[in-house]
Amino acid sequence: MTTAALRWVSSRESRGVSERQFEIDGARGPVPGLVWTPAGAAGGRPLVLIGHGASGSKREGHVVALARRLVRHHGFAAAAIDGPVHGDRRQDGGSVAGLAFLEFSQRWAGDPEMTDDMVTDWRRTIDRLAALDDIGAGPVGFWGLSMGTILGLPLVAADDRIVVAVLGLMGVTGPTSARVAADAADVACPVLFVVQWDDELFERSAAFALFDRLGTPDKRLHANPGPHSAVPPDELDATEAFLADRLAPDAAPPV
Amino acid sequence: MTTAALRWVSSRESRGVSERQFEIDGARGPVPGLVWTPAGAAGGRPLVLIGHGASGSKREGHVVALARRLVRHHGFAAAAIDGPVHGDRRQDGGSVAGLAFLEFSQRWAGDPEMTDDMVTDWRRTIDRLAALDDIGAGPVGFWGLSMGTILGLPLVAADDRIVVAVLGLMGVTGPTSARVAADAADVACPVLFVVQWDDELFERSAAFALFDRLGTPDKRLHANPGPHSAVPPDELDATEAFLADRLAPDAAPPV
Repeated sequence: MTTAALRWVSSRESRGVSERQFEIDGARGPVPGLVWTPAGAAGGRPLVLIGHGASGSKREGHVVALARRLVRHHGFAAAAIDGPVHGDRRQDGGSVAGLAFLEFSQRWAGDPEMTDDMVTDWRRTIDRLAALDDIGAGPVGFWGLSMGTILGLPLVAADDRIVVAVLGLMGVTGPTSARVAADAADVACPVLFVVQWDDELFERSAAFALFDRLGTPDKRLHANPGPHSAVPPDELDATEAFLADRLAPDAAPPV
Repeated sequence: MTTAALRWVSSRESRGVSERQFEIDGARGPVPGLVWTPAGAAGGRPLVLIGHGASGSKREGHVVALARRLVRHHGFAAAAIDGPVHGDRRQDGGSVAGLAFLEFSQRWAGDPEMTDDMVTDWRRTIDRLAALDDIGAGPVGFWGLSMGTILGLPLVAADDRIVVAVLGLMGVTGPTSARVAADAADVACPVLFVVQWDDELFERSAAFALFDRLGTPDKRLHANPGPHSAVPPDELDATEAFLADRLAPDAAPPV
């Protein structure tokens, strides 16, 4: 594990939420990230890592929306980093979504160390953020669907700082299916697993197989009709509540 | 539809909840029921019908607990009636759970009008309760798992006063499977469908087939590990919230 510092790139503040862009040294070079915290707040707080989907980035709409809600509703910190060949890791800044999707798909098949390297990037992100005065080494949650699960499941399986996870839109399938099945068995924290009933990218039966394999007894599956990318707003609300209940179980519910 | 009245049998009050036992004329004779309302409250309010499971009754623990929560948390009314060969419809008052289960299973196979007659009993229950000053003809929700779905799905399909339903622990299976599939297609209201991943009575695939058949686009499936009767407390909380959100969408959430 390196001891290199986190470098701040920029910051801004909006309606009580501080958003800071940072860069850390990842397994294959600089890793760009964003961290959201309550503006002006001091002291430790739970941290939620948000893994974006293929063709997205740390700055895509639902990532930022969830991060801001975790900060505003619960006083948590949230962080996202760009995945391999996505966002600011690309020369084009991720402006051509289809190209990132294509390149990720190719690497998933042909670059078996990509997953381990992303796990390293995530773990270093936790290390660096846990050293900040306004986050600290408290409980960590993980939220990632689709590519967020492909690259996040191995993290959740490997790092026991992560005490709760939202996973889904993925199955025991694809180039790394044997590893997916093995990592699933190693997951020990509470999991909410999200399925789209009519997922055109990952067969329902493969998703059920992944849920089945999850080693934790504290798991539940939520399925909604519609294609891969159509997770309904109600379900996103449920994922927020699930994280909050486990990361701050003694807090009063938001009104 | 008869015009016979509802007959009050007894009443009691506990911690702000009025519980009244009643009897109405059902398709095959007297139908015993319980209705819960906020003590001393006047005016109309949403009504939730709760269908108990095989071997249970209108007075079993989780039925009463849900009814009281709907009253205390949301100001709703709730009602339960004994199903065929259950509870106070039996000479033994339902004291021998296994016998009620056995007889229900036999009738499910050999008494095809049992379901229609129970639908009549439920519909008359709505008629009678809607005439009460402290309930009125407002929106109705239905909650019933397992036998509660076997006998409640046809009601939800047939009666458009029901605007939201919690169903599950059942599948397209059993003696009435063709009817189950047909009724499912006629369901038009929002549905939360509950599955136990390791259900030993109804195969997971049959439950998925029933969810698939539900005609409403506004449906979601929640699955939890464990056997048929082990729906976790979290999920019961979710069913309460689901009903409340649809029956009183403008209410502030309870603190």
